[in-house]
Amino acid sequence: MRNRFCKKPLYEVTRTLAKVAAGAEKAQLVIRNAKLVNVCTAEIQEGVDVAVSEGRIALVGDGAHCIGEKTAVIDASGQYIAPGFIDAHTHVECSMISVGEFARAVIPHGTTCIFMDPHEICNVCGPEGVKAMIGDAKRSPLKAVSNAPSCVPAVAGFEDTGSEIGPEEVRDMMTWDGIMGLGEMMSFQNVIDGDIRMHCELAETLRADQVITGHYPVPDTGAGLNAYIASGVRCCHESTRAEDVLEKMRHGMYALMRYGSVWQEMPAIIHAILDNQIDDRFACLVSDDIQPATLTGDGHMDHIVRRAVREGVDPVKAIQYVTMNPAACFRMDHEMGSITPGKCADLVFFNDLNNIRITRTIIDGNIVAEQGKMTVPVEKADYPAFAYNTMHVGYSITPDCFGIAAPGGKERVKTRVIEIIPDHLENHERLIDLNVRNGWVEADPVNDIMKVTVFERHHETGTRGYGFLKGLGFRKGAVAQTVAHDAHNMIVAGMNDEDMACAANALIECGGGLCAVADGTLLALVPLPVAGLMSDVSAERMDGLLQKLGDAWKEMGCAIRSPFMTMAYISLACVPELRLTNRGLVDCRTFRFTDLFP
Amino acid sequence: MRNRFCKKPLYEVTRTLAKVAAGAEKAQLVIRNAKLVNVCTAEIQEGVDVAVSEGRIALVGDGAHCIGEKTAVIDASGQYIAPGFIDAHTHVECSMISVGEFARAVIPHGTTCIFMDPHEICNVCGPEGVKAMIGDAKRSPLKAVSNAPSCVPAVAGFEDTGSEIGPEEVRDMMTWDGIMGLGEMMSFQNVIDGDIRMHCELAETLRADQVITGHYPVPDTGAGLNAYIASGVRCCHESTRAEDVLEKMRHGMYALMRYGSVWQEMPAIIHAILDNQIDDRFACLVSDDIQPATLTGDGHMDHIVRRAVREGVDPVKAIQYVTMNPAACFRMDHEMGSITPGKCADLVFFNDLNNIRITRTIIDGNIVAEQGKMTVPVEKADYPAFAYNTMHVGYSITPDCFGIAAPGGKERVKTRVIEIIPDHLENHERLIDLNVRNGWVEADPVNDIMKVTVFERHHETGTRGYGFLKGLGFRKGAVAQTVAHDAHNMIVAGMNDEDMACAANALIECGGGLCAVADGTLLALVPLPVAGLMSDVSAERMDGLLQKLGDAWKEMGCAIRSPFMTMAYISLACVPELRLTNRGLVDCRTFRFTDLFP
Repeated sequence: MRNRFCKKPLYEVTRTLAKVAAGAEKAQLVIRNAKLVNVCTAEIQEGVDVAVSEGRIALVGDGAHCIGEKTAVIDASGQYIAPGFIDAHTHVECSMISVGEFARAVIPHGTTCIFMDPHEICNVCGPEGVKAMIGDAKRSPLKAVSNAPSCVPAVAGFEDTGSEIGPEEVRDMMTWDGIMGLGEMMSFQNVIDGDIRMHCELAETLRADQVITGHYPVPDTGAGLNAYIASGVRCCHESTRAEDVLEKMRHGMYALMRYGSVWQEMPAIIHAILDNQIDDRFACLVSDDIQPATLTGDGHMDHIVRRAVREGVDPVKAIQYVTMNPAACFRMDHEMGSITPGKCADLVFFNDLNNIRITRTIIDGNIVAEQGKMTVPVEKADYPAFAYNTMHVGYSITPDCFGIAAPGGKERVKTRVIEIIPDHLENHERLIDLNVRNGWVEADPVNDIMKVTVFERHHETGTRGYGFLKGLGFRKGAVAQTVAHDAHNMIVAGMNDEDMACAANALIECGGGLCAVADGTLLALVPLPVAGLMSDVSAERMDGLLQKLGDAWKEMGCAIRSPFMTMAYISLACVPELRLTNRGLVDCRTFRFTDLFP
Repeated sequence: MRNRFCKKPLYEVTRTLAKVAAGAEKAQLVIRNAKLVNVCTAEIQEGVDVAVSEGRIALVGDGAHCIGEKTAVIDASGQYIAPGFIDAHTHVECSMISVGEFARAVIPHGTTCIFMDPHEICNVCGPEGVKAMIGDAKRSPLKAVSNAPSCVPAVAGFEDTGSEIGPEEVRDMMTWDGIMGLGEMMSFQNVIDGDIRMHCELAETLRADQVITGHYPVPDTGAGLNAYIASGVRCCHESTRAEDVLEKMRHGMYALMRYGSVWQEMPAIIHAILDNQIDDRFACLVSDDIQPATLTGDGHMDHIVRRAVREGVDPVKAIQYVTMNPAACFRMDHEMGSITPGKCADLVFFNDLNNIRITRTIIDGNIVAEQGKMTVPVEKADYPAFAYNTMHVGYSITPDCFGIAAPGGKERVKTRVIEIIPDHLENHERLIDLNVRNGWVEADPVNDIMKVTVFERHHETGTRGYGFLKGLGFRKGAVAQTVAHDAHNMIVAGMNDEDMACAANALIECGGGLCAVADGTLLALVPLPVAGLMSDVSAERMDGLLQKLGDAWKEMGCAIRSPFMTMAYISLACVPELRLTNRGLVDCRTFRFTDLFP
């Protein structure tokens, strides 16, 4: 059952591989005279041939006898080969492009396998959305393995999502072709506390002999971490301190060191390894969230490996962190993660070990990218209709939808305001006096305070939450987006109700996305028609659209880095201090709803 | 499905473990203040507590808060703890004792898990014999995981066994509780050649998501080895040269370095690691075949670890070779092989890292041995009746059964003689002139040449093979045994027909075993009533019986080391040069039957 991400399961082709290795049949492909990065023994071996047949490796060594008339031969003299890179944890939706286009962006950078946790689309479309992502993945040769999302909604009781995941859904998903492992178990406190529902999800995963992936961001290496790991969680990508990484590895937990577009702990936490003489077989590198600008500008796992090498990691070890180690984490090392006989022929070429730039990517024995470009087509996306139809607000949005009535006839009113901290996920709660006009509390451009409304958009519940937002720097206009973790309701922030309504309607019309409006004019629109989260345009095109949106935000006064990301987390009701969901303001220190006007 | 060797599957107890780690419930056992051999990071950590509940580890670190009134506490101050030792490849039948008694012998030496390949009993009793061994294993706390035998008979067409194993039997066994993985695939040449039957066995194993264990003794690291590994074989315990070990590890194959009672390649081949700066995660230590004298005198995996350390292996690495690495080999590292949360609480105590002497063994959280003695009972053996009834010769054996008629009236006849090489598995073919009396070719005590007869004993086929044997040193008498690899027919060797008949009948009467007869007197008898291979006496008692038999052999003139072992391989028709089965003499260089009188 574990063979389903390979072109052919090994049990169908052992005879052919044996015959090719023995010379009784000829190989389909032989790579000659390469410098092999051997991740099994952590060596560089010179002058190595690799013979391939049926998408798998038949022989590593001297492959002269495997070459026949029809055998394709690649002369790799002077070049390194390594196993294809594996990203053990990523959310494709965060790149706002489809899995197919994600594949097109990362394969030329040497990525041959990702373990994706599609919990964003699951919040919107439920398990059927996950299934649609798995289907999307089949457009490309990338081995896009899907975890089953575990925590949907992220914070039950505080928001309305499009779907809910519980033990029954997990049990069902574990039987799907395309699913391997449970997605990041964010409800770590519930796990530690012995919450029955969460432990039933863990049990369904373990019963299916699958791997549980983790999310343990707390700077704690004691009782809590032990409780979490003892519950069967095998890996974690949320370490913020070197000592957390060290203790996770000591406790037999794979430490997935993150270097995404925004969260980039790796250079700090890699010191767990650099500063200690330890066995590092539990170390991996992951991207988690990666934006189109990073994909198009820097790359993917190659970029992360280069960064690790720059920090002082031995290049062969850095390659182990994105090949053998993640494969072992998911108990898939018999299928991938090394250039050894029987494994899938997934491998990459490059010329400089200390500055790895991928020149060729092979998946299942086929050349799929060369010199930075895909060499095989990626089919057109074919998401089911429901995925393109996720804007279910249920009523017309007009400017008066954004009115916030002041309590009892006041002229100024003390208001609970969310103040963002640039480049940080956390925020502050502030109590600020705001002006009231005609009974309605107003935004305050002079003091950088916008109105913000979150509209439930999944089940036409008609619910919406109101708040105020400080720190984005806007002087005018409005912005809106349906990327709003994790429920992905529609969040609209602005300085006036007309622009806010205009922005909201622009998104409803295009099926979700991000936009900016000022003075009644739509300055920029990034349509994300798939679940309001993704588009099927290329990474380059998406990067262009986002840059245009960024320019509009800047023009309106917002100068912070990753502004859409900051906006996207305003609703995430599990990170301190104050968040706004479609149900209202949530105090994330006490996990209670709180009043806008205290 | 992979959890069946643990007291309770993890999915049943995650809540309890989490609560114990978090302090909400109390542990059943807490080990305090130990020096932990951390096989994950290859470190020694001082002052570590381990909290245990439900047979599994809940916490590793500071466990003070896990201790309640009913918690058992072990003060481990000054003591090391390490994961329980795993023997990744052993044949229990070779110790001639039952699995229960084997467990009683090895648990006090720190062994908590063995992967046994019961192909000896399978040759006699078929899959039902394997099932009986699995049942036998349940008498003790030892995790005795059984491989499904793959090559029964070892050499098809040259001998008659009690049973045959093919793809259908493998498919069936893969579904059994107690089976994990395919036993050593000795037919390596068939695998390399693409033999359909052998590849179907491999396919059935891979389809069941199980591990194929290997047997590749050839000093070859090229086409053949690649073909074999490409066929899905994950480990091999048959390396004879350091370069074989190195190349196996480089090819992603676990190198199980053997240090049994007789075959002891490890000190030589460990130089693959000692002489190269390589990642050694694919290195393991195994016993393969281990005799009662070794078990009672030296120990088991502890003995092998000590030997490795004496060769210069870092003790922590040597412990990885018998814990984490074999667990990973069988993709069981999420259950065992490390002292980390969630894993089975299988661990050992000792005082000196450089001279490891186990003082306490814990399995599934229970103390099962202390100071060299089991502290829990092992139930009485309860093999099914068929296992005690395996002597099916089908006729009375009389002295005239041993007569070898000379061809056409000669007085001396040139005869093909098997000459053993002391301490070697291989032997020589010799052509020697022998005397004839009354038309019968005679043994020749003066020149150290015995007569030898192999009786089919499984299906009353009435077949028997005749030959002559040189080099054992006997001056008189006869010896017989039903331990005769791999078919385990009855082999009888002697200087006269009367003693040979007496020896044969002694074994038939007691259900199989080994014996020595001289001048009509039974000098020694080792009854092996279970399949003619094993007894339910203790390792100590078996050692005593074998010593008595050895004394008899010596008295009769045989001075070689491991004489029973040498005798046991006379029938193994796959090792050069000349072997004798119940069907006759086999030339093992050409794999053809050959004539006694050329």
